[in-house]
Amino acid sequence: MSELRLQITMTLDGYVAGPNQSVEHPLGEGGEHLHDWAVKLKTFREMHGGEAGGETGTNDDVLREAFDNIGAVIMGRNMFGGGPGPWGTEPWSGWWGDNPPFHTPVFVLTHHAREPMVMEGGTTFHFVTDGIESAFEQAKAAAGGKDVSLGGGASAAQQYLGAGLIHELEVHIVPIILGGGARLFDNLGDSGINLEPIRTLEGPGVTHLKYRVKK
Amino acid sequence: MSELRLQITMTLDGYVAGPNQSVEHPLGEGGEHLHDWAVKLKTFREMHGGEAGGETGTNDDVLREAFDNIGAVIMGRNMFGGGPGPWGTEPWSGWWGDNPPFHTPVFVLTHHAREPMVMEGGTTFHFVTDGIESAFEQAKAAAGGKDVSLGGGASAAQQYLGAGLIHELEVHIVPIILGGGARLFDNLGDSGINLEPIRTLEGPGVTHLKYRVKK
Repeated sequence: MSELRLQITMTLDGYVAGPNQSVEHPLGEGGEHLHDWAVKLKTFREMHGGEAGGETGTNDDVLREAFDNIGAVIMGRNMFGGGPGPWGTEPWSGWWGDNPPFHTPVFVLTHHAREPMVMEGGTTFHFVTDGIESAFEQAKAAAGGKDVSLGGGASAAQQYLGAGLIHELEVHIVPIILGGGARLFDNLGDSGINLEPIRTLEGPGVTHLKYRVKK
Repeated sequence: MSELRLQITMTLDGYVAGPNQSVEHPLGEGGEHLHDWAVKLKTFREMHGGEAGGETGTNDDVLREAFDNIGAVIMGRNMFGGGPGPWGTEPWSGWWGDNPPFHTPVFVLTHHAREPMVMEGGTTFHFVTDGIESAFEQAKAAAGGKDVSLGGGASAAQQYLGAGLIHELEVHIVPIILGGGARLFDNLGDSGINLEPIRTLEGPGVTHLKYRVKK
């Protein structure tokens, strides 16, 4: 059965993006260092256009596993960006250029209906206007029996966590104090989420905490 | 040189106490499970009155190290409790009975001057009304060359972190989502804290992340 897996990098003080996200600062002010641990890895380079080289080791193993057996991706509109407003001009096609690093169908949560956008490398953006459950159902149908990855950002993650729809959560904790921005664990209230630790791995500049999520 | 070391248990969503702390719920509602990982350990039992037995292993090693080379303790008034108000009657002497688990001088941050209280087992509570720097200076003087432990709670930890006075931070992350309460990393603003990871250890029900703190 397809599971919904959330992989996300979080500062020790709980932020997945800095304050004042904008086209100059897609991850908010100070957020540009969130993914320093990932961008130099072999798997990251492969997913982002096949550039040769890159580091291997624990962090690369974790990242490779995160992409393994993923048949579709869900993301929130803030992560996709664009849409009406100052962030971009239509037709905005995301931050990732012509060949996005997903290489699967991607379901974007939005209030604005749009036709699907077929990109290079296997990525097609679908725009879902009828809610998170519908997006998960569509993503599952598209995933062909594989799992679905929730790409973020914070708001989408909170909605799926709060609704009890996430099966597996891996938080990559980086030694950064942002002091402000978007928190992963906010607006959850008394959501009754139970976490069962699966494993802890430590790599250079990041600690990976993996959990099963039960509601 | 005496260093200031903070050891604190935090939920994955960043809380060190649940909401609505009271005499019935010293760690807030839902916070009673924060220290489940610790209370069954051999070292915990020894510090809390010498009760025999208790678990050994990674968690016990971490806890033993946390108490090692500590010559004085600082805590905030919420952690000490009592004082004027509904939480207790004078003279309140803390939550820990006649023989508190500190066995060193303890400096309590407060706005209410009081005479020191000499307890059993080596603990003496001193009440500091002139701020966090003064408390640290007094604690250092009392520690006899050993380190000073910052016991908590959240507000005291935030003040010392924000002032750049903490040298070593170990966060014990437990797989709990509280959804509300007192966050460790709050009210820090743009404090310019730099963290250098020292090590990660995983024990049953808790992951220990240790950092050097630089400002």
